[in-house]
Amino acid sequence: MSQFNQVSVQKEANIYYDGQVTSRTVILENGEKVTLGIMLPGSYEFGTDGPEIMEILSGDLKVLLPGEESWMEIQGQATFHVPAKASFKLEIRKVTDYCCSYPSA
Amino acid sequence: MSQFNQVSVQKEANIYYDGQVTSRTVILENGEKVTLGIMLPGSYEFGTDGPEIMEILSGDLKVLLPGEESWMEIQGQATFHVPAKASFKLEIRKVTDYCCSYPSA
Repeated sequence: MSQFNQVSVQKEANIYYDGQVTSRTVILENGEKVTLGIMLPGSYEFGTDGPEIMEILSGDLKVLLPGEESWMEIQGQATFHVPAKASFKLEIRKVTDYCCSYPSA
Repeated sequence: MSQFNQVSVQKEANIYYDGQVTSRTVILENGEKVTLGIMLPGSYEFGTDGPEIMEILSGDLKVLLPGEESWMEIQGQATFHVPAKASFKLEIRKVTDYCCSYPSA
């Protein structure tokens, strides 16, 4: 079981879409932020401020990245990048566990 | 925003009831475990190994503690204790954010 060590974790959850998407914010030792989240089945759209790296830890979903015309299918694990100031769509078919990183500029 | 510092966080989520209840495991600096979780509307029953302290951070629910005949109503924040080797029931009406502590014996 992989884990983050020497980090800070915010106690309160981030809650989106009436709880269908939730996450916890973790601040790493180097000051970078990650969120550990769960998406339940449904269709969602999220916007980015800075660039994001989405690591799917487990799940069954498809993703439409900004500027793309075809959806990326994911069963199991995958990682995709989302540029800053963009939006991406997700269609979640089964409970999806993720880790989103927000690398510093 | 309160937070835990100098902790370890397991990357993968704990997933129950097909994702309606999920949590992340955090190991505190003193070695004690807490889980930060979300419960979506529904009816659930959980069993304990050791004693647990459930802190409801936000939510709308009722709880039936072991040995009790009447449900405890919670809107907003509350803390309740569950003894070891017991089970308790929850009826969640709105997305509920919680922090569960597992104090060492």
